[in-house]
Amino acid sequence: MSKLSAAEEQSTNAYGWAARDSSGILSPFHFIRRANGEKDITLKILYCGICHSDLHLVKNELGITNYPIVPGHEIVGEVRKVGPNVTKFKVGDKAGIGCIIGSCRKCNNCKDDLESYCSKMIWTFNQEYFDGLRTFGGYSDKLVVDEHFAVRIPHGFALDGAAPLLCAGITVYSPIKYFGLAHPGNHLGIVGLGGLGHVAVKFAKALGAKVTVISTSPSKEKEAIEHLGADAFLVSRDQDQLQAAMETMDGILDTVSAPHSLLPLVGLLKTNGKLIVVGASLKPHELPTMPLIMGRKLIAGSAAGGMKETQEMIDFAAKNNITADIEVIPMDYVNTALERLAKGDVRYRFVIDVGNTLNPPF
Amino acid sequence: MSKLSAAEEQSTNAYGWAARDSSGILSPFHFIRRANGEKDITLKILYCGICHSDLHLVKNELGITNYPIVPGHEIVGEVRKVGPNVTKFKVGDKAGIGCIIGSCRKCNNCKDDLESYCSKMIWTFNQEYFDGLRTFGGYSDKLVVDEHFAVRIPHGFALDGAAPLLCAGITVYSPIKYFGLAHPGNHLGIVGLGGLGHVAVKFAKALGAKVTVISTSPSKEKEAIEHLGADAFLVSRDQDQLQAAMETMDGILDTVSAPHSLLPLVGLLKTNGKLIVVGASLKPHELPTMPLIMGRKLIAGSAAGGMKETQEMIDFAAKNNITADIEVIPMDYVNTALERLAKGDVRYRFVIDVGNTLNPPF
Repeated sequence: MSKLSAAEEQSTNAYGWAARDSSGILSPFHFIRRANGEKDITLKILYCGICHSDLHLVKNELGITNYPIVPGHEIVGEVRKVGPNVTKFKVGDKAGIGCIIGSCRKCNNCKDDLESYCSKMIWTFNQEYFDGLRTFGGYSDKLVVDEHFAVRIPHGFALDGAAPLLCAGITVYSPIKYFGLAHPGNHLGIVGLGGLGHVAVKFAKALGAKVTVISTSPSKEKEAIEHLGADAFLVSRDQDQLQAAMETMDGILDTVSAPHSLLPLVGLLKTNGKLIVVGASLKPHELPTMPLIMGRKLIAGSAAGGMKETQEMIDFAAKNNITADIEVIPMDYVNTALERLAKGDVRYRFVIDVGNTLNPPF
Repeated sequence: MSKLSAAEEQSTNAYGWAARDSSGILSPFHFIRRANGEKDITLKILYCGICHSDLHLVKNELGITNYPIVPGHEIVGEVRKVGPNVTKFKVGDKAGIGCIIGSCRKCNNCKDDLESYCSKMIWTFNQEYFDGLRTFGGYSDKLVVDEHFAVRIPHGFALDGAAPLLCAGITVYSPIKYFGLAHPGNHLGIVGLGGLGHVAVKFAKALGAKVTVISTSPSKEKEAIEHLGADAFLVSRDQDQLQAAMETMDGILDTVSAPHSLLPLVGLLKTNGKLIVVGASLKPHELPTMPLIMGRKLIAGSAAGGMKETQEMIDFAAKNNITADIEVIPMDYVNTALERLAKGDVRYRFVIDVGNTLNPPF
């Protein structure tokens, strides 16, 4: 990296790790956070999860990256400053920040507590805030944010294991609730046992559903059942297993973004069954309509939930002792962690111990 | 056609018009209806609508046709005989028969009044009944049917205009009700203004929705609005019109079976919008998941409703004076009618005046 000039260094007030180009390699970086406004809180960041979309964005795989980019949107921190009109937080509280840090607050989606579907929502990094400043994510020392976009982390809840809930957790909790996938008596299939899938199993079990994990990897069966508490395991490449499970599921939550066929999953659904896709695929799927018609089945997508639901999710997780299974890493391990994540070599989420391992770069 | 032998002629007790091969040409045909059982009614068929699927089946376009085939599943007739255990009908009543004339009556779908989703349901024609006899449809003089699969036609309701409701009507009414597409305040798009689409407009308006007809044919605008009562008309090939209508619809009912892109339709939906496909396409659609995810939108299929809902639909139609717009034809016009239907040359449904024009073939 090129060092900042003395003038630039003086004007910056925050630091973190940024990627500068599509190599996706992160390195220390100075930048500017806005001053704490009337409705803002300033967090000292303690932990930040590494989501798969961080990987896509640092490498510009979606073609929308503005370098330099500081990733990170599964953030837990301690409140160090509160504006005069802040009502939810006091100094010393723990707060969580997820995918978005702004929205219009006026449209129908915002009024319906669906800020995550607001057409003017602002991502936690790689975007421009209302004041024209770039947004930078949680691989950094601090964050200034309107309190509306921060949730309270209940006292005593594990801060490192809670961090991934701010994206992975709410991304699975929201469709499970909205589409009614996990009430007692319901049989829910969960496709993929990664960062999203493993917390989906925990939420669905806590909500009372029968859960079958659907995976291409037979090696994950033992862990899915014995450790995560799934009721059954289905190897999606095994035609006999698929055949035996046809029309047995009320819903399926598909967390896999890699290309795969939806047709066998539709076949697993009972009449009126719901297949909910949360793993965004870059290529379109093939949609055969006849199996949908003959079983009144639906395929839907779902993004992260709004702020009200994110708070509900965190409170539910704390009450039911649901955290992500994580590997805590120091800040300077992040490039290795991203490499391992690209290979699926993590069970199930990396979390950076930002608070203890992010040192000022110079 | 080859004439029946004297013995064969003696053993048959019904006649109609059948296709003998994939030319799809219909001609007079003798066949057997079972004797009227304890729960059966025997109908003298008065009217039968011509559905697009009749056309597919007489030409074996789905590869499932067993010749000879007597099509017709939009049937209205007069009850001429009732079994001793029949409770819903008496001689002289008018009854309607739709797509199915049997189901297992024991599975969860049957228990939930969703006989049309029973895996053992029996189509009104081109299948084998429980007794081993072939089923033949409504292009014929009479029909013997378990009263469970017949609906009561309210006194005074137009019998010819009601016939197409038994398939086209219930196929659109059922998803409109199940997916909540047409309550007051809802904006519903209806794709395609054919046999299904035109009755969908009538039902949706009667249920209180704002209705926009979406069609490739600008020529249908006047009729859609002035005659059918739609509120707006959208030419689906006009990019400016599409753009102006983005994210304005709560639901879309897609009645078109010809190949077409679903992506523009998904774009027309608001957050949480529902695209319901009832026109079965032989080729899979392309399904882009990102637009579904970013708007929590769903794509579903829906088949005809069960018997309870079919009765509800007919009662609602009679109360609100909803019938199909039809062209009544004599039996011997049927081959010309099928040719015209293949070209879309009908507004909006042919109905055969079976009662007055089907003469014994010899």
